[in-house]
Amino acid sequence: MVNIPVLKSITEANALLADALRATFARQDVLVLNIIASPGAGKTSLLERTIDMLDGELCLSVIEGDPTTSLDAERIVAAGVPAVQINTGGGCHLEARMIQAALEQVSVEDADVVIIENVGNLLCPTGWDLGEDAKVVVASLPEGDDKPLKYPMAFATAEAVVINKIDLEPYLPAKASVLRENALKVNPRLAVFEVSCLTGQGLDRWLDWMREQLAAKRGSST
Amino acid sequence: MVNIPVLKSITEANALLADALRATFARQDVLVLNIIASPGAGKTSLLERTIDMLDGELCLSVIEGDPTTSLDAERIVAAGVPAVQINTGGGCHLEARMIQAALEQVSVEDADVVIIENVGNLLCPTGWDLGEDAKVVVASLPEGDDKPLKYPMAFATAEAVVINKIDLEPYLPAKASVLRENALKVNPRLAVFEVSCLTGQGLDRWLDWMREQLAAKRGSST
Repeated sequence: MVNIPVLKSITEANALLADALRATFARQDVLVLNIIASPGAGKTSLLERTIDMLDGELCLSVIEGDPTTSLDAERIVAAGVPAVQINTGGGCHLEARMIQAALEQVSVEDADVVIIENVGNLLCPTGWDLGEDAKVVVASLPEGDDKPLKYPMAFATAEAVVINKIDLEPYLPAKASVLRENALKVNPRLAVFEVSCLTGQGLDRWLDWMREQLAAKRGSST
Repeated sequence: MVNIPVLKSITEANALLADALRATFARQDVLVLNIIASPGAGKTSLLERTIDMLDGELCLSVIEGDPTTSLDAERIVAAGVPAVQINTGGGCHLEARMIQAALEQVSVEDADVVIIENVGNLLCPTGWDLGEDAKVVVASLPEGDDKPLKYPMAFATAEAVVINKIDLEPYLPAKASVLRENALKVNPRLAVFEVSCLTGQGLDRWLDWMREQLAAKRGSST
């Protein structure tokens, strides 16, 4: 008798494919980050700043997810890094099968770090594994400092939170220190960075964290 | 022979229930608005300001949708208006069946306006009719002025856009005039309001629009 496994759901099929992608990324010794945030929190600006400040130190590839338009991928290519745009046609999250398709269009073999910018949505992307090593939440301070309590799922499953737009703090009722506290209430293991992608403030620690993640992955895979 | 209609999908079942809700709201002569926005765009702050500025002129009821917590409903009740909180348990949008259940807990018979604050998500709520008369998008200026182009679905199906947090414009790369232009590119019929729920600026025109919508509905139903 032959047992034929039946996939219970599309999320289970997604998890199997994500594991296969993770194995491929491990063989290629590439660190993969899945960036999750609300629309307009500053995901693409964080990538532009990261590319600029690394100044060629690490080889990056970027996969951009958006409901429509290729505006984000164009910004990344203009910054000098290969990028592929996935348009979900209004869909609210990326799935592993989309990453698999994107890898046919962008080379990651020579990359040190692949950054996946998910669709702007703090809810749906959380449940879809893309084969990443770590999820990173970008939380914009103007959104308010209560967001980790009201949208805990993204924070609970991430390794790091980048609190962006702290240059606006003097003009906001929200406080970066309260946002940090609320994020750590949801997930005490989070690495938290307070940055401004407009001024560049605080981004050095974010880059150090990325370097450490890459070194840890390469140390563990040799 | 009896024909038994088979529902093609849960969205079709939702549409049927939404039409039934709309008929009920019409009989009760109540205007129903469905507020859609990214997390932290200022939906609840808009409601608080609206309640405060109306100062009892209209009778409001509020239905709050959030993935978790009752923080938003508590803010509305503190402002003096009956509110019921729907927690979606991480779910990314409200559905008509949730509104039907909420109506067992909050009276709308004496209300002039029912405001439904959807889950913070610029994508998924767009596809789910709640029986409303109009969708209203709250677009926060710090999210950037390109959002209507990148997330067109919410703007395309709405009757009005409230551009919030314009008090921050001097400190942002984004411009309210560009956000307005981009919203009108997606949907030339949109009523557009530029407001600050922090300072109160611009909210008088939003209130006038709401009064006009109510008058038009009551005019058409008599």
